[in-house]
Amino acid sequence: MTAINLDHMASSPLLPEVKEAMIEAINMDYGNPSSLHKVGEKASEVVENARSSVANLINASLPKEVVFTASGTGSVNHAIKGVAYANSGKGRHIVTSNIEHSSVIRSIRRLKMMDYNVTSVPVDEHGRVNPDDVANAIKKDTILVSIMHSNNEIGTIQPIEEIAKITKEKEIIFHTDAVDSVGVVPFDVQKMGADLVSFASNPFYGPTGVGGLYIRRGTRIWPLLDGGMQEYGKRAGTENIIGITGMGKAAELAKRDMDSRLIHLKELRETLLSEFPNFIDEYYINNHPEFSLPNLVSVSVKYIEGESVLLMLDDEDISIATRSACATGSLRASHVLMSIGRSHADAQGTMIITYGVDNTRDDIMRFLEEISKTVKTLRDISPLYNKIKK
Amino acid sequence: MTAINLDHMASSPLLPEVKEAMIEAINMDYGNPSSLHKVGEKASEVVENARSSVANLINASLPKEVVFTASGTGSVNHAIKGVAYANSGKGRHIVTSNIEHSSVIRSIRRLKMMDYNVTSVPVDEHGRVNPDDVANAIKKDTILVSIMHSNNEIGTIQPIEEIAKITKEKEIIFHTDAVDSVGVVPFDVQKMGADLVSFASNPFYGPTGVGGLYIRRGTRIWPLLDGGMQEYGKRAGTENIIGITGMGKAAELAKRDMDSRLIHLKELRETLLSEFPNFIDEYYINNHPEFSLPNLVSVSVKYIEGESVLLMLDDEDISIATRSACATGSLRASHVLMSIGRSHADAQGTMIITYGVDNTRDDIMRFLEEISKTVKTLRDISPLYNKIKK
Repeated sequence: MTAINLDHMASSPLLPEVKEAMIEAINMDYGNPSSLHKVGEKASEVVENARSSVANLINASLPKEVVFTASGTGSVNHAIKGVAYANSGKGRHIVTSNIEHSSVIRSIRRLKMMDYNVTSVPVDEHGRVNPDDVANAIKKDTILVSIMHSNNEIGTIQPIEEIAKITKEKEIIFHTDAVDSVGVVPFDVQKMGADLVSFASNPFYGPTGVGGLYIRRGTRIWPLLDGGMQEYGKRAGTENIIGITGMGKAAELAKRDMDSRLIHLKELRETLLSEFPNFIDEYYINNHPEFSLPNLVSVSVKYIEGESVLLMLDDEDISIATRSACATGSLRASHVLMSIGRSHADAQGTMIITYGVDNTRDDIMRFLEEISKTVKTLRDISPLYNKIKK
Repeated sequence: MTAINLDHMASSPLLPEVKEAMIEAINMDYGNPSSLHKVGEKASEVVENARSSVANLINASLPKEVVFTASGTGSVNHAIKGVAYANSGKGRHIVTSNIEHSSVIRSIRRLKMMDYNVTSVPVDEHGRVNPDDVANAIKKDTILVSIMHSNNEIGTIQPIEEIAKITKEKEIIFHTDAVDSVGVVPFDVQKMGADLVSFASNPFYGPTGVGGLYIRRGTRIWPLLDGGMQEYGKRAGTENIIGITGMGKAAELAKRDMDSRLIHLKELRETLLSEFPNFIDEYYINNHPEFSLPNLVSVSVKYIEGESVLLMLDDEDISIATRSACATGSLRASHVLMSIGRSHADAQGTMIITYGVDNTRDDIMRFLEEISKTVKTLRDISPLYNKIKK
């Protein structure tokens, strides 16, 4: 049976056109964009074309507001630490939320070790930040607000535009981690109003290991990598031309196909949500009913362990996730689920189902059949479940 | 006429086997190494195989002492800033040399903006550091010595083993930027004794945008990228699997073919150096007569401007460099050439000729014929040259 990828959050497949573009880049074997000779010029052109495609995807005013990085995590670290270091003369206070990705949490934790301080605002039962809480958290020495655009575990989309109005008025730099949004849902940096936007190539079917950071012109930030004058002086190091080529092509396709992809994703979500009760009982859907990514369903199934389901489905060649791939190895319950009020037990029974253009309604139906069997098997051997059912 | 790449320092071609491995990685479309399911396991295996090949190339005790980065510059920044931040409780003094690569110079300059202080030791007329100078520069609050293994403009190889003896005795962390050495000349981290070694994939015919940092077990260093637990917790962010695959294959080939490559490079150097006087007069060879990279010849030709030669040779499809590609855009004379005592005028007349396995004796001869014409043309129109010749 064909493998089914319902773990797009960890890895989306490369689109055929992206593969083609990358293979062509390998065969062309471009030179170093910094070289003065023709070989260098050609390489530089390839990188700048990709930059334009990415800038176009997010509606940046200037292509050079887009800096290529090595991952979404690389972008987030650059944004948060770069602003913190560059603005330490003004203050050392950062505002963030309780449900950020590990790259945000750990970048900020690192800064706390360097005498920065942090206010983390809570979220409601659907994982949404209240902009008023952000406004109230801002102090005289606040230099940065970092609130994610969409959550990687439950899909909740934050009121970024409203938060940006607050930060703009108070003249505070605003970063949003939009790694799971850019290229997946429409994302317009002009409309959003954030000064810094982190994103990555893989969520829109480009290669892993390449990301982007939008830096609005005039934003006070240091590079994380110092050295040569690559990326308009904002990130040193010879460019990952093959990866950047793939990201550029993927951005072009994401822009072109955004509408039809969204329709497809919403159909898959609709199938999943409407069919779920026909296969499993006693569960919570963790998604926000209104403000949520279209390609992610988070479900907490009672009396089972998500990790057992994951491994049993893996035997049937169906991939799902129980938490962000970046959090693998952590034994603690998800901070996101705890923040929206799930119990520890329910958090352990949570599965994140993420899908994409390559999935079909049949994939969803096969998944539902398999998970129904799996959950039954697990509940049958659960002493807790049997006790409660008595 | 076929293009001739005598600017390997900016860009070495991908070897056919490396291209093949990368194209296979694209077609296999591996998942996310952090995922718990089979798709993730397979991806993790690919990354770990590449890590073993790289560890083998530099003779690391453990593969996990190798951290994949996004470039040589990324490795250098990680090493220098990571040590500086992690050891600031012990001190804030760093020792380096006058002829480092821009990534080292600018990383340290950045740290100076954060209240670190630096001693930079001079080099002799061939660009070599005296280990005694390093020993004398070390103070009670020194936390890091960073001296490059080989220089990217003149090829001089430093007495790393002797410096490592000093740092080991004084219990100071020692980083060496070996970007232009690893994979080009034999490099054994056990023999060298440095705690941190920066390198990149492209100098040994792997892709650009992927590098490595050797971190000797027990070295106190912070990650530069915080987030997920990738790279054994030493560098967060989803891996550039396609690039890492290419680097792994390139490392394997570099190890296998090291001896024959060295013979070839030395033959090309011998041709270049012995034939040069038959084509051009009044020049200096900047290389160290004994301790020098075999794939680089730096020559300062009097009464001409290197950049004009570069552009004229480019018209003949011959690529050379006048300085490190990372220093492009800088108008100042090379700090390396000034440090070895070249005049400003001679520094401007400098060309860096770097070659590799893909070059032949014929390439060198054609280059010499063309450069001889070019230099004659430029000197004929030089008022200074004509005045002196009168």
